[in-house]
Amino acid sequence: MRAAFDLSLYLVLDPVQCGGHDAAVRVARAALEGGATLVQLRAPEWHKRAWFDLARELLPITRAYGVPFVINDHVDVALAVDADGVHIGQRDLPADIARRLLGPDALIGLSVSNLDETTEANTLGGIVDYLGAGPVYATPTKTDASTPCGIDGLSAIRAAARLPTVAIGGIQSHNAADVMRARPAGLAVVSAICKAADPREAAATLAATIAQSRI
Amino acid sequence: MRAAFDLSLYLVLDPVQCGGHDAAVRVARAALEGGATLVQLRAPEWHKRAWFDLARELLPITRAYGVPFVINDHVDVALAVDADGVHIGQRDLPADIARRLLGPDALIGLSVSNLDETTEANTLGGIVDYLGAGPVYATPTKTDASTPCGIDGLSAIRAAARLPTVAIGGIQSHNAADVMRARPAGLAVVSAICKAADPREAAATLAATIAQSRI
Repeated sequence: MRAAFDLSLYLVLDPVQCGGHDAAVRVARAALEGGATLVQLRAPEWHKRAWFDLARELLPITRAYGVPFVINDHVDVALAVDADGVHIGQRDLPADIARRLLGPDALIGLSVSNLDETTEANTLGGIVDYLGAGPVYATPTKTDASTPCGIDGLSAIRAAARLPTVAIGGIQSHNAADVMRARPAGLAVVSAICKAADPREAAATLAATIAQSRI
Repeated sequence: MRAAFDLSLYLVLDPVQCGGHDAAVRVARAALEGGATLVQLRAPEWHKRAWFDLARELLPITRAYGVPFVINDHVDVALAVDADGVHIGQRDLPADIARRLLGPDALIGLSVSNLDETTEANTLGGIVDYLGAGPVYATPTKTDASTPCGIDGLSAIRAAARLPTVAIGGIQSHNAADVMRARPAGLAVVSAICKAADPREAAATLAATIAQSRI
C-alpha cells in the first residue's frame, strides 16, 4: 500500500532557481519548516549525476519531516536513491512503465493540461496516484509547457478528475487564494519558494492561505 | 555472465541526425546490414517517451542481427524496454549504481576523455564492460563534449585502459584508418552513418577499413 500523502503545499524544487546544490538543500529545509507537504526535485538543465548527488542529500531531510520526496521524470534517479516516487509528464516514460519499474509502493504523479489528458488519466487508477493540473498561469519556469488553462480550466480538470489534483503553473502568494477557489487538493509552487528571499516564510504564508481557503 | 560483444563498428544512432523516428529505424537496419556490431541510441534533444517508442522498435531489429543494443545515459529507458545495457558519461548516474539497477548481465560502457578518467575506470572492473574514449576529433554532434584527445591521446588512453576501448568523436570514413592506428577495439561513429546518403554502404566501407587495419 502506498503511504498517505498530502498535496496541500507541493514544492517543486528547482536547484538552478535556488542558486545551486547547497542553496537547494537550504531552500528545501526552510520550505519543510514552513509547511511544505511534498517535495519534487526538478532540474531539467542538470546532468543526472548532479540530480543523484542532490537527491541523495535531500531524502533524509524529507524523511525527517515525514514528507514524500519524488523525482521529476527520471525513474532511474528515483530508483538510484530510493526516493518515494516520481512525477511524470505526458512526454516522459508511460505511467504504467514507471509503475512497473518502481513497484506498488511508489507515489506516481502525472501532469495533465486539458480535459482529454484528464479523461485518459482517469483510466490509470492504481497506476497514477495524483494529477498535476496546469499550467494555471503562464510561467517562465517551464519553457516547454502547454497553454495555460486558467482558473476555469483548472476547475474543469478538477471536476473531471477521479484522482486528487494539485494545481501548478505561475502560482505565487498573490494569486494562491484565487487558485484555491477552484478547489484543487493543493498548490504546487516553484519560484514562489525557490526564489523567495525567505523560503520558510514564503512557505508558511502559502500554507496559511491554503488552510484559510478551506474554511 | 554478460554475452560477448564486438566494439568494431559501433553505431551511435542519433534520430535527429537521421531525420526522425522512422528514418532512424531505417538507418539502424541499413547500418546492421552494412556490418555495425553494436548500436547505441542517443537522443539528447528528445523527451523520454520518444526514446522509449524508438528503443522498443529498434530492439527486435538489433536482436535479429545478434547485435547488442544499449541506451545512452537513461538507465530507466534501458529497463523499460529491456535493452542490452547502457552507455554512461562522467556526469550521468555512477557506474556502480547503473550496474545495481541493471543487473549482472547488462552491458555497461563508460566515456573517458583523459588518463585520469581512464585510471579511475580501471578500478571499475566487473562494473564497466568497455570504455568509449574521446572525442578523438572536435565534433559538432556533442556540444558539451570534452577537449579532443587526438590520436596520441587515444593511444595513451588505450595503453592505460584495462578494458576494451572504442574510439569516438569526429570519426569519418576519411580518418577511420588513422584512428585505427591507435589500436582501439573499434570505432564509434554518429554522423558518418546517420547522415550518410547510403548508411548501409557507409557502414560497409567503415567495416572494411577497420578489418583492413587489423591485418
